[in-house]
Amino acid sequence: MDDDEARPQPLQGVKVVDLGQVYQGPYAAFLMAKAGADVIKVEPLHGEPVRIREALGGGASLPMAMLNSNKRAITLNLKTPRGCELLKALVSRSDVLIENYAPGVMDRLGVGAKTLFEVNPRLVYASATGYGLSGPERDSLAMDLTVQAASGIMSVTGFPDGPPLKAGPAVADFISGTHLYGAIVTALFERERTGLGRMVEVAMVETIYPTLASNLGMIQSDLGPPPPRTGNRHGGLAISPYNVYPCRDGHVAIICLVEAHWTNLLKAMGRGELKDDPRFIDNAARVTHMDETDAVVEEWTKNLTRAEIFEASRAYRLPTAPVRNLVEVMNSPHMHERGMLQWIDHYSLGRIVVPNSPLRYHGTPQMMGASNARLGEHNREIYGGVLGLSDSEIDALMADGVI
Amino acid sequence: MDDDEARPQPLQGVKVVDLGQVYQGPYAAFLMAKAGADVIKVEPLHGEPVRIREALGGGASLPMAMLNSNKRAITLNLKTPRGCELLKALVSRSDVLIENYAPGVMDRLGVGAKTLFEVNPRLVYASATGYGLSGPERDSLAMDLTVQAASGIMSVTGFPDGPPLKAGPAVADFISGTHLYGAIVTALFERERTGLGRMVEVAMVETIYPTLASNLGMIQSDLGPPPPRTGNRHGGLAISPYNVYPCRDGHVAIICLVEAHWTNLLKAMGRGELKDDPRFIDNAARVTHMDETDAVVEEWTKNLTRAEIFEASRAYRLPTAPVRNLVEVMNSPHMHERGMLQWIDHYSLGRIVVPNSPLRYHGTPQMMGASNARLGEHNREIYGGVLGLSDSEIDALMADGVI
Repeated sequence: MDDDEARPQPLQGVKVVDLGQVYQGPYAAFLMAKAGADVIKVEPLHGEPVRIREALGGGASLPMAMLNSNKRAITLNLKTPRGCELLKALVSRSDVLIENYAPGVMDRLGVGAKTLFEVNPRLVYASATGYGLSGPERDSLAMDLTVQAASGIMSVTGFPDGPPLKAGPAVADFISGTHLYGAIVTALFERERTGLGRMVEVAMVETIYPTLASNLGMIQSDLGPPPPRTGNRHGGLAISPYNVYPCRDGHVAIICLVEAHWTNLLKAMGRGELKDDPRFIDNAARVTHMDETDAVVEEWTKNLTRAEIFEASRAYRLPTAPVRNLVEVMNSPHMHERGMLQWIDHYSLGRIVVPNSPLRYHGTPQMMGASNARLGEHNREIYGGVLGLSDSEIDALMADGVI
Repeated sequence: MDDDEARPQPLQGVKVVDLGQVYQGPYAAFLMAKAGADVIKVEPLHGEPVRIREALGGGASLPMAMLNSNKRAITLNLKTPRGCELLKALVSRSDVLIENYAPGVMDRLGVGAKTLFEVNPRLVYASATGYGLSGPERDSLAMDLTVQAASGIMSVTGFPDGPPLKAGPAVADFISGTHLYGAIVTALFERERTGLGRMVEVAMVETIYPTLASNLGMIQSDLGPPPPRTGNRHGGLAISPYNVYPCRDGHVAIICLVEAHWTNLLKAMGRGELKDDPRFIDNAARVTHMDETDAVVEEWTKNLTRAEIFEASRAYRLPTAPVRNLVEVMNSPHMHERGMLQWIDHYSLGRIVVPNSPLRYHGTPQMMGASNARLGEHNREIYGGVLGLSDSEIDALMADGVI
């Protein structure tokens, strides 16, 4: 349990077949690889969608590098009978299979869960889809954008007088990928006790529902119709100050959850005289006078820099944060010092920043980042070394368009 | 592996002490409870922050019900030496402790990880914080709003001509809570093999970084400065159509990822004559003529309802989705049919909808939702039945303000 021990990675020895595409499946497999699992990324002959975009260069290369570090990569054509046999051979030697194809695709290919459990009853088969493997919306096509629409995210993002808006990051892809990781590891834990594998399933749209807790609370209440989109204010318009305020070099977020935050903020602002002002005397009063409260705060922030406000926040224990742009985030001294972000030399992108796993296991050194494998880079290593095929057999598979 | 078996829940027999507050820690413990773990929610004598808000009624009650179903609840004053002893007694009989206090709080109380590992070397100690247990920003106060600012979410959410904006749901709280669950179960898996417990750690700000993959890609590219906030358009302005379009009764999200989507969309719109129009001939052309592309799509959507567009999307295999409001989401026939959403009778809220776990374990029935426990509801059951205290000892603890 001590940080100075050097224990093995927690998932050491776990073998994963990663059929994941884009973000959702590959992120679950990334978390496994970074916890020490042996992850084989299996792609169609032309590569998974992000690989194809990688070939175009520009902005699409970095995601491939971010999510596929510490995995080996092979190609496999599942539209051939021989390809399906090879997948079964891999699955028979593996603990986990991850796929985020649309419902029914694996069955149509002849490598559905039922078939793979016959090959390996100890398998953890992990399916991630947009809407799930059952239900009336099962077959709706799903991407991060459409799930943000259907799940409710868009309806609560944006300003009251503006249209519904998506969250900028691909939150639906990633929160569902994270749930998928949790489901897989839960089934692996169970298998240690029971010896049995299991099918686990995650639907993107369902992983969003809990995140709407505050917003749903307003629907449930008898306080009348829920507030419209609230911009940067509290989703229930029930806390003040709670907003993003302009300052000299950008914006800062400030929130006062308890009265001590407000009284400390008054001190930081040099506005102690407002302490007994009835408009601001408690949270309920400030909510009633929300525009005036925000104006008082903005009067202070607008003449300061983000750094000055952040320093005042430390001194007075205020929950604030600068609104950072992505260049600042990518170069965060904090995340680099913690090893969450690492500089690596990438075969095509040069010197880039890649993330480590946000899952931190004290007592084991973090795994170092590395370039993602090239398309099919480990074909000989896996098909030869793991499945025992000869060089000439592998050559024939390549000539036949199987790998 | 068959769905018609009825296997036990995968985490059956796992005992969890849940000191979690608000969303992050309680959500990780919720996922454990819904996978069959025995979760004891431990609260200060006046309740955790969401419990306090629950007492105020209105919108704050539902989150308490959503995240604390299937847990037992006790009170415990960790600011008393006897309270700390009781926590240690509980930990000695448990597998997991979850806490999302600020860094250092548990140590100051005298029940930090080191102390608890002395009590139980097999413990999985799970810490979730805003910025992590190390690094220069460790002690910055963190809530969902401030982490959305510091992590980069706000900088990429909103319109190009508008200010930075938060995502409406509490995505930072929940995505970090989901990661926390993954870290805990990983350590439980490992413990089955090694017999050793572990400290695991998750920092909110770090769990956001991977979600920015598309957006970070633009920073990394040599295509010039990254695009500003892009509203509902693609974060890298590299795909078109990719937007939210007004229709007769709201909005719909439409995305064309591959050329077949576009040609099918043209058919659905009855605009086959545009198939060979050089402005729309491929994605690159449509990106160059993004405003015109969006105008063509909007010309079609504006005269239709969301339902009509959704039906056309099924017929033509288009990735679209209606922008749903929260009343629609809460009543989703799809999620109710799948058991993700359940109606329950709540002791104070009456008939409400609560979520099940988004983690689905095929072969085991979903756990039914139930009212969250009242503050201290299981004090006698736990302190008596589990720790073996007598009724009079429990009475004395209550009189002394320990429980």
